[in-house]
Amino acid sequence: MNYLLTVNYDGTNYKGFQVQPHQKTIAGELERAIFELYGHKVKIVGSGRTDAGVHALAQKANFIINRNLSLDKMVKSLNAKLPFDIRVTKAEDVDDFFSARFNAKYKVYEYKFVKEYDAFNYKYASLLPKKFDIKEVKKASKHLIGEKDFTSFSSADTDAPDFVKTIYDVSICENNNSLSIEIKGSGFLRNMVRIIIGTLIDVGLGKKTADDVKKIIEAKDRRLAGKTAEAKGLFLKEVLY
Amino acid sequence: MNYLLTVNYDGTNYKGFQVQPHQKTIAGELERAIFELYGHKVKIVGSGRTDAGVHALAQKANFIINRNLSLDKMVKSLNAKLPFDIRVTKAEDVDDFFSARFNAKYKVYEYKFVKEYDAFNYKYASLLPKKFDIKEVKKASKHLIGEKDFTSFSSADTDAPDFVKTIYDVSICENNNSLSIEIKGSGFLRNMVRIIIGTLIDVGLGKKTADDVKKIIEAKDRRLAGKTAEAKGLFLKEVLY
Repeated sequence: MNYLLTVNYDGTNYKGFQVQPHQKTIAGELERAIFELYGHKVKIVGSGRTDAGVHALAQKANFIINRNLSLDKMVKSLNAKLPFDIRVTKAEDVDDFFSARFNAKYKVYEYKFVKEYDAFNYKYASLLPKKFDIKEVKKASKHLIGEKDFTSFSSADTDAPDFVKTIYDVSICENNNSLSIEIKGSGFLRNMVRIIIGTLIDVGLGKKTADDVKKIIEAKDRRLAGKTAEAKGLFLKEVLY
Repeated sequence: MNYLLTVNYDGTNYKGFQVQPHQKTIAGELERAIFELYGHKVKIVGSGRTDAGVHALAQKANFIINRNLSLDKMVKSLNAKLPFDIRVTKAEDVDDFFSARFNAKYKVYEYKFVKEYDAFNYKYASLLPKKFDIKEVKKASKHLIGEKDFTSFSSADTDAPDFVKTIYDVSICENNNSLSIEIKGSGFLRNMVRIIIGTLIDVGLGKKTADDVKKIIEAKDRRLAGKTAEAKGLFLKEVLY
Protein backbone atom coordinates (compact mmCIF):
# COMPACT_ATOMS: atom_id res chain seq x y z
CA MET A 1 0.00 0.00 0.00
CA ASN A 2 1.06 3.56 -0.73
CA TYR A 3 0.09 6.24 1.77
CA LEU A 4 0.25 10.02 1.39
CA LEU A 5 0.64 12.15 4.51
CA THR A 6 0.07 15.87 4.97
CA VAL A 7 2.61 17.11 7.50
CA ASN A 8 2.74 20.35 9.45
CA TYR A 9 6.03 21.23 11.17
CA ASP A 10 7.96 23.89 12.99
CA GLY A 11 11.41 23.48 11.43
CA THR A 12 13.30 25.38 14.16
CA ASN A 13 14.77 22.31 15.82
CA TYR A 14 15.41 20.17 12.72
CA LYS A 15 18.17 19.86 10.17
CA GLY A 16 15.64 20.04 7.36
CA PHE A 17 13.21 17.53 5.89
CA GLN A 18 15.52 14.97 4.29
CA VAL A 19 16.92 12.05 6.30
CA GLN A 20 20.58 12.57 7.23
CA PRO A 21 22.71 10.28 9.36
CA HIS A 22 23.01 11.37 13.03
CA GLN A 23 20.80 14.43 12.49
CA LYS A 24 17.30 15.19 13.67
CA THR A 25 15.22 15.63 10.52
CA ILE A 26 11.48 15.68 9.75
CA ALA A 27 11.58 12.62 7.48
CA GLY A 28 13.78 10.85 10.03
CA GLU A 29 11.20 11.43 12.75
CA LEU A 30 8.40 10.19 10.46
CA GLU A 31 10.34 7.03 9.56
CA ARG A 32 11.07 6.40 13.24
CA ALA A 33 7.42 6.85 14.23
CA ILE A 34 6.24 4.51 11.44
CA PHE A 35 8.79 1.90 12.47
CA GLU A 36 7.79 2.11 16.14
CA LEU A 37 4.14 1.83 15.19
CA TYR A 38 4.11 -0.81 12.48
CA GLY A 39 7.49 -2.53 12.79
CA HIS A 40 8.36 -1.77 9.15
CA LYS A 41 11.32 0.27 7.94
CA VAL A 42 9.88 2.54 5.27
CA LYS A 43 11.30 5.30 3.11
CA ILE A 44 9.58 8.67 3.34
CA VAL A 45 9.45 10.57 0.02
CA GLY A 46 8.67 14.24 0.49
CA SER A 47 7.33 16.58 -2.20
CA GLY A 48 10.76 18.17 -1.90
CA ARG A 49 13.37 18.93 0.70
CA THR A 50 12.97 21.84 3.00
CA ASP A 51 16.18 23.31 4.45
CA ALA A 52 17.16 23.32 8.11
CA GLY A 53 14.93 25.77 9.96
CA VAL A 54 12.27 26.03 7.23
CA HIS A 55 8.67 25.41 8.35
CA ALA A 56 5.75 23.70 6.65
CA LEU A 57 2.04 24.22 6.98
CA ALA A 58 1.26 21.33 4.64
CA GLN A 59 4.21 19.35 3.33
CA LYS A 60 3.27 16.15 1.49
CA ALA A 61 5.13 12.86 1.83
CA ASN A 62 4.36 9.28 0.84
CA PHE A 63 5.61 5.86 1.91
CA ILE A 64 5.04 2.31 0.74
CA ILE A 65 4.28 -0.38 3.29
CA ASN A 66 3.20 -3.97 2.92
CA ARG A 67 0.19 -3.56 5.20
CA ASN A 68 -3.37 -2.33 5.11
CA LEU A 69 -3.72 0.51 7.59
CA SER A 70 -6.66 2.47 8.93
CA LEU A 71 -6.21 6.11 7.87
CA ASP A 72 -7.84 7.74 10.89
CA LYS A 73 -5.92 5.55 13.26
CA MET A 74 -2.68 6.27 11.35
CA VAL A 75 -3.03 10.03 11.93
CA LYS A 76 -3.70 9.61 15.64
CA SER A 77 -1.06 6.96 16.25
CA LEU A 78 1.67 8.78 14.32
CA ASN A 79 0.98 11.99 16.22
CA ALA A 80 1.25 10.08 19.49
CA LYS A 81 4.75 8.93 18.44
CA LEU A 82 5.91 12.23 16.93
CA PRO A 83 7.29 15.26 18.80
CA PHE A 84 4.77 18.10 19.23
CA ASP A 85 6.46 20.23 16.57
CA ILE A 86 5.68 17.70 13.81
CA ARG A 87 1.97 16.97 13.22
CA VAL A 88 0.38 14.69 10.65
CA THR A 89 -2.86 16.38 9.64
CA LYS A 90 -4.10 13.92 7.03
CA ALA A 91 -3.44 10.42 5.65
CA GLU A 92 -4.68 9.23 2.26
CA ASP A 93 -4.55 6.06 0.17
CA VAL A 94 -2.81 6.68 -3.15
CA ASP A 95 -2.15 4.37 -6.10
CA ASP A 96 1.02 2.32 -6.21
CA PHE A 97 2.85 4.57 -8.66
CA PHE A 98 2.13 7.83 -6.91
CA SER A 99 5.19 9.81 -5.79
CA ALA A 100 4.86 12.87 -3.54
CA ARG A 101 7.93 14.19 -5.31
CA PHE A 102 7.38 13.48 -9.01
CA ASN A 103 3.63 13.97 -9.14
CA ALA A 104 3.67 17.44 -7.53
CA LYS A 105 2.01 19.91 -9.94
CA TYR A 106 2.86 23.04 -8.04
CA LYS A 107 3.96 24.31 -4.66
CA VAL A 108 3.28 27.46 -2.74
CA TYR A 109 5.89 28.97 -0.41
CA GLU A 110 5.33 31.93 1.85
CA TYR A 111 8.09 34.12 3.24
CA LYS A 112 7.24 36.22 6.29
CA PHE A 113 8.74 39.49 7.45
CA VAL A 114 7.80 41.44 10.55
CA LYS A 115 8.50 45.09 11.27
CA GLU A 116 9.27 44.29 14.90
CA TYR A 117 10.05 41.05 16.66
CA ASP A 118 8.06 40.01 19.67
CA ALA A 119 8.57 36.93 21.83
CA PHE A 120 6.24 34.90 19.62
CA ASN A 121 7.20 35.71 16.02
CA TYR A 122 10.99 35.61 16.33
CA LYS A 123 11.37 32.05 15.07
CA TYR A 124 8.87 32.50 12.25
CA ALA A 125 9.88 35.64 10.37
CA SER A 126 12.74 37.82 9.22
CA LEU A 127 13.02 41.44 10.24
CA LEU A 128 11.82 43.85 7.53
CA PRO A 129 14.38 46.59 6.89
CA LYS A 130 13.19 50.03 8.08
CA LYS A 131 13.27 51.61 4.62
CA PHE A 132 11.86 49.09 2.22
CA ASP A 133 10.58 50.04 -1.25
CA ILE A 134 7.64 47.66 -1.64
CA LYS A 135 6.58 49.22 -4.94
CA GLU A 136 9.92 48.42 -6.55
CA VAL A 137 9.85 44.90 -5.05
CA LYS A 138 6.43 44.33 -6.61
CA LYS A 139 7.78 45.53 -9.96
CA ALA A 140 10.81 43.24 -9.64
CA SER A 141 8.65 40.25 -8.77
CA LYS A 142 6.88 40.47 -12.15
CA HIS A 143 10.14 39.54 -13.88
CA LEU A 144 10.18 36.23 -12.03
CA ILE A 145 6.88 35.03 -13.45
CA GLY A 146 6.92 32.52 -16.30
CA GLU A 147 8.93 29.52 -17.46
CA LYS A 148 12.55 30.47 -17.01
CA ASP A 149 16.02 29.18 -16.36
CA PHE A 150 16.58 29.96 -12.67
CA THR A 151 20.31 29.09 -12.52
CA SER A 152 21.00 32.49 -10.91
CA PHE A 153 18.72 31.54 -8.03
CA SER A 154 20.06 28.08 -7.33
CA SER A 155 22.69 27.22 -4.74
CA ALA A 156 25.98 25.93 -6.12
CA ASP A 157 25.70 22.50 -4.49
CA THR A 158 22.50 21.51 -6.26
CA ASP A 159 22.18 18.24 -8.14
CA ALA A 160 19.30 19.49 -10.30
CA PRO A 161 19.24 17.95 -13.80
CA ASP A 162 17.51 21.04 -15.15
CA PHE A 163 17.28 24.67 -14.06
CA VAL A 164 14.07 25.52 -15.90
CA LYS A 165 11.10 26.05 -13.62
CA THR A 166 7.82 27.89 -13.96
CA ILE A 167 6.74 30.53 -11.48
CA TYR A 168 3.01 31.11 -11.77
CA ASP A 169 2.56 33.91 -9.33
CA VAL A 170 4.30 36.10 -6.75
CA SER A 171 1.95 37.95 -4.42
CA ILE A 172 3.08 40.47 -1.87
CA CYS A 173 0.84 41.35 1.02
CA GLU A 174 1.46 44.04 3.62
CA ASN A 175 -0.24 44.21 7.00
CA ASN A 176 0.22 46.37 10.08
CA ASN A 177 3.27 44.66 11.46
CA SER A 178 4.09 42.20 8.68
CA LEU A 179 4.87 41.66 5.04
CA SER A 180 4.53 38.33 3.30
CA ILE A 181 5.70 37.21 -0.11
CA GLU A 182 3.96 34.17 -1.56
CA ILE A 183 5.47 32.32 -4.51
CA LYS A 184 3.63 29.68 -6.50
CA GLY A 185 5.71 27.57 -8.84
CA SER A 186 5.99 24.24 -10.65
CA GLY A 187 8.93 23.34 -8.46
CA PHE A 188 11.94 24.99 -6.91
CA LEU A 189 15.70 24.50 -7.10
CA ARG A 190 17.83 24.16 -3.99
CA ASN A 191 17.58 27.42 -1.96
CA MET A 192 15.70 29.03 -4.86
CA VAL A 193 12.96 30.68 -2.81
CA ARG A 194 15.44 32.00 -0.25
CA ILE A 195 17.74 33.39 -2.96
CA ILE A 196 14.77 35.04 -4.70
CA ILE A 197 13.79 36.58 -1.35
CA GLY A 198 17.38 37.70 -0.69
CA THR A 199 17.41 39.37 -4.11
CA LEU A 200 14.05 41.06 -3.48
CA ILE A 201 15.42 42.33 -0.14
CA ASP A 202 18.24 44.02 -2.11
CA VAL A 203 15.60 45.59 -4.36
CA GLY A 204 13.62 46.79 -1.33
CA LEU A 205 16.80 48.34 0.09
CA GLY A 206 17.61 50.10 -3.21
CA LYS A 207 20.78 48.07 -3.78
CA LYS A 208 19.25 46.58 -6.92
CA THR A 209 16.50 47.78 -9.25
CA ALA A 210 13.56 45.84 -10.67
CA ASP A 211 15.32 45.85 -14.04
CA ASP A 212 18.43 44.34 -12.45
CA VAL A 213 16.34 41.30 -11.54
CA LYS A 214 15.51 40.75 -15.21
CA LYS A 215 19.24 40.94 -16.04
CA ILE A 216 20.16 38.60 -13.17
CA ILE A 217 17.76 35.95 -14.49
CA GLU A 218 19.18 36.28 -18.01
CA ALA A 219 22.79 36.07 -16.82
CA LYS A 220 22.33 32.59 -15.27
CA ASP A 221 24.95 33.42 -12.66
CA ARG A 222 24.35 32.81 -8.95
CA ARG A 223 26.91 35.45 -7.98
CA LEU A 224 24.70 38.25 -9.34
CA ALA A 225 21.66 37.42 -7.20
CA GLY A 226 21.22 38.40 -3.54
CA LYS A 227 22.15 36.47 -0.43
CA THR A 228 20.19 33.41 0.65
CA ALA A 229 17.54 34.81 3.01
CA GLU A 230 17.21 33.35 6.53
CA ALA A 231 15.46 29.99 6.72
CA LYS A 232 13.21 30.87 9.65
CA GLY A 233 10.91 33.17 7.63
CA LEU A 234 10.07 30.47 5.08
CA PHE A 235 6.95 28.28 5.10
CA LEU A 236 6.02 25.53 2.62
CA LYS A 237 2.33 26.35 2.45
CA GLU A 238 0.77 24.01 -0.07
CA VAL A 239 1.64 21.22 -2.50
CA LEU A 240 -0.85 20.34 -5.22
CA TYR A 241 -1.11 17.18 -7.33
CA MET B 1 14.33 57.70 38.58
CA ASN B 2 11.46 55.26 38.29
CA TYR B 3 10.94 53.50 34.97
CA LEU B 4 7.97 51.45 33.79
CA LEU B 5 8.53 48.74 31.18
CA THR B 6 6.00 46.93 29.01
CA VAL B 7 7.23 43.39 28.53
CA ASN B 8 6.16 40.71 26.06
CA TYR B 9 7.27 37.14 26.74
CA ASP B 10 6.89 33.52 25.78
CA GLY B 11 6.83 31.84 29.19
CA THR B 12 7.58 28.33 27.90
CA ASN B 13 11.19 28.27 29.02
CA TYR B 14 10.85 30.21 32.30
CA LYS B 15 9.93 29.38 35.89
CA GLY B 16 7.49 32.26 35.95
CA PHE B 17 7.90 36.01 36.31
CA GLN B 18 9.16 36.35 39.88
CA VAL B 19 12.89 36.14 40.70
CA GLN B 20 13.82 32.78 42.28
CA PRO B 21 17.30 31.63 43.24
CA HIS B 22 18.94 29.35 40.64
CA GLN B 23 15.92 29.50 38.31
CA LYS B 24 15.47 31.19 34.95
CA THR B 25 12.70 33.75 35.43
CA ILE B 26 11.46 36.76 33.46
CA ALA B 27 12.22 39.28 36.22
CA GLY B 28 15.60 37.61 36.74
CA GLU B 29 16.47 38.12 33.07
CA LEU B 30 15.34 41.76 33.21
CA GLU B 31 17.44 42.44 36.34
CA ARG B 32 20.45 40.78 34.72
CA ALA B 33 20.05 42.81 31.51
CA ILE B 34 19.72 46.08 33.48
CA PHE B 35 22.79 45.23 35.53
CA GLU B 36 24.86 44.39 32.45
CA LEU B 37 23.74 47.59 30.78
CA TYR B 38 23.89 50.16 33.58
CA GLY B 39 25.98 48.48 36.28
CA HIS B 40 23.20 48.87 38.88
CA LYS B 41 21.49 46.07 40.78
CA VAL B 42 17.80 46.95 40.62
CA LYS B 43 14.65 45.24 41.80
CA ILE B 44 12.00 44.57 39.17
CA VAL B 45 8.44 44.94 40.45
CA GLY B 46 5.90 43.30 38.16
CA SER B 47 2.18 44.07 38.06
CA GLY B 48 1.88 40.57 39.47
CA ARG B 49 3.51 37.19 39.20
CA THR B 50 2.80 34.97 36.27
CA ASP B 51 3.29 31.23 36.86
CA ALA B 52 5.86 29.03 35.14
CA GLY B 53 4.84 28.58 31.51
CA VAL B 54 2.37 31.48 31.41
CA HIS B 55 2.88 34.03 28.60
CA ALA B 56 2.45 37.80 28.48
CA LEU B 57 1.57 40.10 25.63
CA ALA B 58 2.02 43.19 27.78
CA GLN B 59 3.18 42.63 31.35
CA LYS B 60 4.13 45.82 33.22
CA ALA B 61 7.11 46.14 35.55
CA ASN B 62 8.92 49.06 37.12
CA PHE B 63 12.36 49.60 38.64
CA ILE B 64 14.08 52.42 40.45
CA ILE B 65 17.58 53.45 39.41
CA ASN B 66 19.76 56.36 40.40
CA ARG B 67 20.36 57.44 36.80
CA ASN B 68 18.73 59.41 34.04
CA LEU B 69 18.22 57.13 31.09
CA SER B 70 17.09 57.67 27.51
CA LEU B 71 13.83 55.75 27.00
CA ASP B 72 14.30 54.85 23.32
CA LYS B 73 17.81 53.69 23.95
CA MET B 74 16.67 51.68 26.99
CA VAL B 75 14.23 49.64 24.88
CA LYS B 76 16.85 48.88 22.22
CA SER B 77 19.68 48.16 24.63
CA LEU B 78 17.62 45.93 26.91
CA ASN B 79 16.38 43.92 23.94
CA ALA B 80 19.97 43.46 22.79
CA LYS B 81 20.79 41.95 26.22
CA LEU B 82 17.61 39.87 26.60
CA PRO B 83 16.88 36.46 25.10
CA PHE B 84 14.61 36.58 22.02
CA ASP B 85 11.62 35.22 23.97
CA ILE B 86 11.50 38.29 26.25
CA ARG B 87 10.96 41.64 24.51
CA VAL B 88 10.63 45.08 26.05
CA THR B 89 8.13 46.95 23.88
CA LYS B 90 7.98 50.25 25.75
CA ALA B 91 9.74 52.23 28.49
CA GLU B 92 8.17 55.15 30.34
CA ASP B 93 9.13 57.64 33.05
CA VAL B 94 6.85 57.34 36.06
CA ASP B 95 6.74 59.30 39.32
CA ASP B 96 8.77 58.13 42.30
CA PHE B 97 5.86 56.55 44.14
CA PHE B 98 4.48 54.57 41.23
CA SER B 99 4.36 50.80 41.71
CA ALA B 100 3.52 48.46 38.81
CA ARG B 101 1.99 46.18 41.42
CA PHE B 102 0.00 48.44 43.72
CA ASN B 103 -1.16 50.98 41.17
CA ALA B 104 -2.63 48.42 38.76
CA LYS B 105 -6.35 49.24 38.24
CA TYR B 106 -7.22 46.12 36.31
CA LYS B 107 -5.74 43.27 34.35
CA VAL B 108 -6.92 41.28 31.38
CA TYR B 109 -6.01 37.62 30.98
CA GLU B 110 -6.81 35.48 27.96
CA TYR B 111 -6.96 31.70 27.99
CA LYS B 112 -6.68 29.97 24.62
CA PHE B 113 -8.03 26.59 23.54
CA VAL B 114 -7.58 24.97 20.15
CA LYS B 115 -9.66 22.17 18.67
CA GLU B 116 -6.55 20.58 17.18
CA TYR B 117 -2.90 21.08 17.86
CA ASP B 118 -0.53 21.92 15.04
CA ALA B 119 3.23 22.37 15.25
CA PHE B 120 2.83 26.08 15.95
CA ASN B 121 0.08 26.38 18.57
CA TYR B 122 1.07 23.52 20.89
CA LYS B 123 2.92 25.73 23.37
CA TYR B 124 0.26 28.44 23.36
CA ALA B 125 -3.07 26.72 23.97
CA SER B 126 -4.87 23.87 25.69
CA LEU B 127 -6.81 21.28 23.75
CA LEU B 128 -10.55 21.91 23.73
CA PRO B 129 -12.48 18.77 24.71
CA LYS B 130 -14.47 17.28 21.79
CA LYS B 131 -17.86 17.74 23.42
CA PHE B 132 -17.87 21.12 25.05
CA ASP B 133 -21.05 22.92 26.04
CA ILE B 134 -20.15 26.54 25.34
CA LYS B 135 -23.66 27.79 26.11
CA GLU B 136 -23.49 26.40 29.66
CA VAL B 137 -19.94 27.79 30.08
CA LYS B 138 -21.20 31.25 29.09
CA LYS B 139 -24.01 30.92 31.62
CA ALA B 140 -21.55 29.83 34.32
CA SER B 141 -19.20 32.71 33.56
CA LYS B 142 -21.91 35.24 34.48
CA HIS B 143 -21.76 34.05 38.10
CA LEU B 144 -18.11 35.10 38.27
CA ILE B 145 -18.78 38.75 37.53
CA GLY B 146 -18.83 41.22 40.40
CA GLU B 147 -17.00 41.87 43.67
CA LYS B 148 -16.73 38.50 45.37
CA ASP B 149 -14.69 36.41 47.73
CA PHE B 150 -12.74 34.09 45.40
CA THR B 151 -11.30 31.78 48.08
CA SER B 152 -12.60 28.74 46.14
CA PHE B 153 -10.45 29.80 43.19
CA SER B 154 -7.21 30.44 45.02
CA SER B 155 -4.39 27.95 45.41
CA ALA B 156 -3.75 26.75 48.97
CA ASP B 157 -0.23 28.19 49.17
CA THR B 158 -1.26 31.78 48.63
CA ASP B 159 -0.17 34.56 50.97
CA ALA B 160 -3.02 36.87 49.96
CA PRO B 161 -4.21 39.15 52.79
CA ASP B 162 -7.66 39.29 51.26
CA PHE B 163 -9.65 37.04 48.92
CA VAL B 164 -12.09 39.65 47.66
CA LYS B 165 -11.53 40.63 44.03
CA THR B 166 -13.72 42.18 41.37
CA ILE B 167 -14.24 40.53 38.00
CA TYR B 168 -15.55 43.09 35.52
CA ASP B 169 -16.09 40.89 32.52
CA VAL B 170 -15.67 37.38 31.12
CA SER B 171 -15.95 37.18 27.35
CA ILE B 172 -15.92 33.94 25.42
CA CYS B 173 -15.08 33.95 21.75
CA GLU B 174 -15.23 30.97 19.41
CA ASN B 175 -13.47 30.77 16.05
CA ASN B 176 -12.94 28.01 13.51
CA ASN B 177 -10.22 26.17 15.32
CA SER B 178 -10.09 28.03 18.62
CA LEU B 179 -11.92 29.22 21.67
CA SER B 180 -10.69 31.97 23.92
CA ILE B 181 -11.88 33.11 27.32
CA GLU B 182 -10.94 36.62 28.35
CA ILE B 183 -11.21 37.70 31.97
CA LYS B 184 -10.93 41.29 33.12
CA GLY B 185 -10.53 41.86 36.84
CA SER B 186 -9.22 44.21 39.52
CA GLY B 187 -6.57 41.67 40.42
CA PHE B 188 -6.19 37.94 40.71
CA LEU B 189 -5.25 35.52 43.48
CA ARG B 190 -2.57 32.90 43.02
CA ASN B 191 -3.66 30.48 40.23
CA MET B 192 -7.09 32.14 40.21
CA VAL B 193 -7.47 32.43 36.43
CA ARG B 194 -6.30 28.87 35.87
CA ILE B 195 -8.66 27.49 38.56
CA ILE B 196 -11.56 29.47 37.05
CA ILE B 197 -10.69 27.99 33.64
CA GLY B 198 -10.40 24.48 35.09
CA THR B 199 -13.84 24.90 36.64
CA LEU B 200 -15.31 26.19 33.36
CA ILE B 201 -13.79 23.15 31.61
CA ASP B 202 -15.77 20.93 34.03
CA VAL B 203 -18.89 22.91 33.12
CA GLY B 204 -18.16 22.50 29.39
CA LEU B 205 -17.76 18.75 29.93
CA GLY B 206 -21.05 18.51 31.84
CA LYS B 207 -19.34 17.52 35.11
CA LYS B 208 -20.60 20.70 36.73
CA THR B 209 -23.54 23.00 35.94
CA ALA B 210 -23.61 26.79 35.71
CA ASP B 211 -25.49 26.82 39.01
CA ASP B 212 -22.75 24.74 40.64
CA VAL B 213 -20.33 27.58 39.92
CA LYS B 214 -22.50 29.94 41.94
CA LYS B 215 -22.47 27.44 44.83
CA ILE B 216 -18.71 26.91 44.55
CA ILE B 217 -18.09 30.66 44.92
CA GLU B 218 -20.36 30.83 47.96
CA ALA B 219 -18.75 27.80 49.64
CA LYS B 220 -15.28 29.44 49.76
CA ASP B 221 -13.69 26.02 49.45
CA ARG B 222 -10.91 25.33 46.94
CA ARG B 223 -11.74 21.61 46.91
CA LEU B 224 -15.08 22.24 45.19
CA ALA B 225 -13.65 24.09 42.18
CA GLY B 226 -12.06 22.41 39.16
CA LYS B 227 -8.42 21.55 38.54
CA THR B 228 -5.84 24.24 37.83
CA ALA B 229 -5.81 24.47 34.02
CA GLU B 230 -2.51 24.11 32.13
CA ALA B 231 -0.26 27.18 32.23
CA LYS B 232 0.59 27.18 28.54
CA GLY B 233 -2.86 28.42 27.39
CA LEU B 234 -2.71 31.53 29.57
CA PHE B 235 -1.68 35.02 28.42
CA LEU B 236 -1.48 38.19 30.50
CA LYS B 237 -2.87 40.52 27.86
CA GLU B 238 -3.12 43.95 29.43
CA VAL B 239 -2.51 45.83 32.67
CA LEU B 240 -4.13 49.21 33.15
CA TYR B 241 -3.23 51.99 35.59
